[in-house]
Amino acid sequence: MTTDAYDALSRHWTRLHRFAHLYSMASWDRAAMMPPKGSEARALALAEMEALLHRMRTDPGLAALLARADDEPLDGAARSNLREIRRDWKSANALPPALVQAKSLAASRCEHAWREQRPAGDWAGFVTNLREVVRLAREEAKYLADSSGMPVYDALLDQFEPGMTSVEVAAVFGDLQTWLPGLVRAVRNKQASESVIEPVGPFAKAAQRALSLEVMALLGFDFEAGRLDESAHPFSGGVPEDTRLTTRYREDDFVQSLMGTIHETGHARYEQNLPRESLGQPIARARSAAIHESQSLSFEMQLGRSTGFIARLAPLLAARFGAQPAFETGNLQRLLTRVHPGFIRVDADELTYPAHVILRYGIEKRLIEGEIEADDIPALWDEGMASLLGVDTRGNFSDGCMQDVHWSAGLFGYFACYTLGAMYAAQWFAAIRRGTPELDARLFAGDLAPVFDWIHANIWQQASRWTTAELAERASGERLNPLHFRRHLETRYLGVVPR
Amino acid sequence: MTTDAYDALSRHWTRLHRFAHLYSMASWDRAAMMPPKGSEARALALAEMEALLHRMRTDPGLAALLARADDEPLDGAARSNLREIRRDWKSANALPPALVQAKSLAASRCEHAWREQRPAGDWAGFVTNLREVVRLAREEAKYLADSSGMPVYDALLDQFEPGMTSVEVAAVFGDLQTWLPGLVRAVRNKQASESVIEPVGPFAKAAQRALSLEVMALLGFDFEAGRLDESAHPFSGGVPEDTRLTTRYREDDFVQSLMGTIHETGHARYEQNLPRESLGQPIARARSAAIHESQSLSFEMQLGRSTGFIARLAPLLAARFGAQPAFETGNLQRLLTRVHPGFIRVDADELTYPAHVILRYGIEKRLIEGEIEADDIPALWDEGMASLLGVDTRGNFSDGCMQDVHWSAGLFGYFACYTLGAMYAAQWFAAIRRGTPELDARLFAGDLAPVFDWIHANIWQQASRWTTAELAERASGERLNPLHFRRHLETRYLGVVPR
Repeated sequence: MTTDAYDALSRHWTRLHRFAHLYSMASWDRAAMMPPKGSEARALALAEMEALLHRMRTDPGLAALLARADDEPLDGAARSNLREIRRDWKSANALPPALVQAKSLAASRCEHAWREQRPAGDWAGFVTNLREVVRLAREEAKYLADSSGMPVYDALLDQFEPGMTSVEVAAVFGDLQTWLPGLVRAVRNKQASESVIEPVGPFAKAAQRALSLEVMALLGFDFEAGRLDESAHPFSGGVPEDTRLTTRYREDDFVQSLMGTIHETGHARYEQNLPRESLGQPIARARSAAIHESQSLSFEMQLGRSTGFIARLAPLLAARFGAQPAFETGNLQRLLTRVHPGFIRVDADELTYPAHVILRYGIEKRLIEGEIEADDIPALWDEGMASLLGVDTRGNFSDGCMQDVHWSAGLFGYFACYTLGAMYAAQWFAAIRRGTPELDARLFAGDLAPVFDWIHANIWQQASRWTTAELAERASGERLNPLHFRRHLETRYLGVVPR
Repeated sequence: MTTDAYDALSRHWTRLHRFAHLYSMASWDRAAMMPPKGSEARALALAEMEALLHRMRTDPGLAALLARADDEPLDGAARSNLREIRRDWKSANALPPALVQAKSLAASRCEHAWREQRPAGDWAGFVTNLREVVRLAREEAKYLADSSGMPVYDALLDQFEPGMTSVEVAAVFGDLQTWLPGLVRAVRNKQASESVIEPVGPFAKAAQRALSLEVMALLGFDFEAGRLDESAHPFSGGVPEDTRLTTRYREDDFVQSLMGTIHETGHARYEQNLPRESLGQPIARARSAAIHESQSLSFEMQLGRSTGFIARLAPLLAARFGAQPAFETGNLQRLLTRVHPGFIRVDADELTYPAHVILRYGIEKRLIEGEIEADDIPALWDEGMASLLGVDTRGNFSDGCMQDVHWSAGLFGYFACYTLGAMYAAQWFAAIRRGTPELDARLFAGDLAPVFDWIHANIWQQASRWTTAELAERASGERLNPLHFRRHLETRYLGVVPR
């Protein structure tokens, strides 16, 4: 028996990978390089490519190939690849091409306008575009739900986090809300008596960039296969063969760009270390959004805020910005683990971050389900920020409901993955510690290998070979278990000895 | 009667424009941004797109649409657009896809090897690859000739310079050879007694970049619709909506990056000022290679080396690099108009440049016609450089027949356009002077508007509305007339008062 049908599918997805390369690079360019007047032509070019990719994914010949491939003698890896090909095919076929193109255009326009509307706090202007994006996202959700039999919001969530459901998210977030507010209070009480010396700026942009590059090198980023640039909203993009990450610099605060770069480096190393022999096939893609975030948060939170790593960071800061008391290791540790509810999700500390996610998750789920409208967001935002974090955002759109790019870009269903990712990261580090009980001492000695070796073998190289649940079980012996996140926070922030 | 067929063609070319946008940006990125390990994936992605663009241009449905569109009630602009669509379609359909692919591969291989063979002066290694490129270029020329009824070399020339023939080039270059050698001798005699002070470096890269940006702004480059970056070989790329130009900096010589930037800015402003209302249609494309070069050379030679512009440049140099005697206006003028036969085309002065072009043109024409073989090039090169420029290139392959990338890249038919462009540029400036007799005084006063206004109306906005001959006639009252080039050189270099 031959594997002709499977081979034809595999070649088709290789071509998709090559076209997606051009799409991905043009998207990175739009955020990191493109001058403003290029925007309209870029939006049209990207929409045209999106339509082509969609046509290729919905090619009428694929159904027969998929049916035949099922009966071909495939090995385990090929069968996993076929599973991922089918998932890709199914979700593409659920959507009419006109909707895909319309949503891409509306999202491009909304996001582009957002760049100027956000600093201006122009909610009225923003919501005009956002209404259309929401309308199209609802339509998309409806089509995906019809095709998959899932509830509408779950159908979007499943695009980013296959296998995850809103029922499971509700359980996980519900549990979180039973203990996290108390933990935040306890930590804030404890920290109230700690003195923390603030770093004194300004911190020249050039020095921050040099520091970012140095820390990326320390974290194993391959500069022959990627770049660091600037954009309004930091992200990790490009292609696995050439990852492009971005950061942004504020001269009054180096922590934002530094920790942002560490975060994006986690994403980038995942991409750089996907199995090269099968690159281009869906099996070689990063597993899911939550697993991706588990990498960025393994770098930014688990590793980046560990005492051992901070001890390595301290002399680098002094070398770049000049020595100052704030850069003493103990102070730096207190500074980077200080818990303080604030406006901005991406700048939030590890403990209050989940509240930002829970707020957005709740709003976007109701938005997609048609329970609320785009115009209702500011009031719900103010209410949520007040009750979850005790923060007053009234009238402050820029640092409120306009702070993130996601909704303007039509990205509904993603937010939960940040906190699921934080939980997976804690779960991975618990597993790493079981294998390397002396981990903290190793990190202190500047030896990051136990972390990278474990992640390389258990996450990066596994790519999409397994379902997310299987991946987690094979890597750590269990499916998603939020208890590791709780233990990690209690240990780091209250000094509770892990059981 | 409707214009359905024409409208369908127009939509098809709009889609081509959008895909070409992604191709163009990824090409720019490859030269200006891409890290080395991205190279293989990028090459595959670009080849995939090239194949798609070729499939779209040779779509079997187009023939019927073109036939029907001819009988539709089209206005003049639409008819011009249809002419350009047909030209694009015809040249794509003339070539079998296998030949396109074979030539692209052979050229890639030859160019890639050339990068190391050129510095090593390895002609024997180079010619092995070049033979295959020449063989395929001859095949290409044959197919294009069969389809168009033109002689083989003309069929290649026509791809870059539609309407131009080798008979006309022979007449123009023949005339040039009757007076240019004498003019070069006269100018060199005159300049022998002039003293020129050399600028003293180093010239910091950051200061050169700042100067480049300043001069681009002075020349009207729209930074909201383009960027300046660096690459090994300077070029102007991107898309009309977002032009990307590059330069390279040598700290021992600022003239190369400065004049290179001025040259590329000429190309870029043409692209930035193509008629926006029809962008995406072939009628809105830059007219031809010679007309494109007429823009870069209008900027670099006509304007950039004019006394008035140099007077504006002098204080900018002093401000960026510190005052020095070489930056005195008169000296700078002498420096930028010094005539000296040399080995390298791209570094040649305005007077000896055409000899480099005539040499290459003569060789490549005989090569394509099968009169000579790739192995004959070095002897013909040495002979030509000796007789045309009095330069001895024997045994010096690197600075001789291996200096340019064109032949290794399979680019036959382009070289003449550089000198035709220089002639058109002189013709445009003669027309501008007729309309604005006080042009030099205006330029001295820093008023570049007479130049830009004329070019904007007569060249940029006309794009491909007319054939090249019609464009020249409408703009300047006559077709290509090399006399303007002669007068320009005699005036600038010998002070002959224009008749």
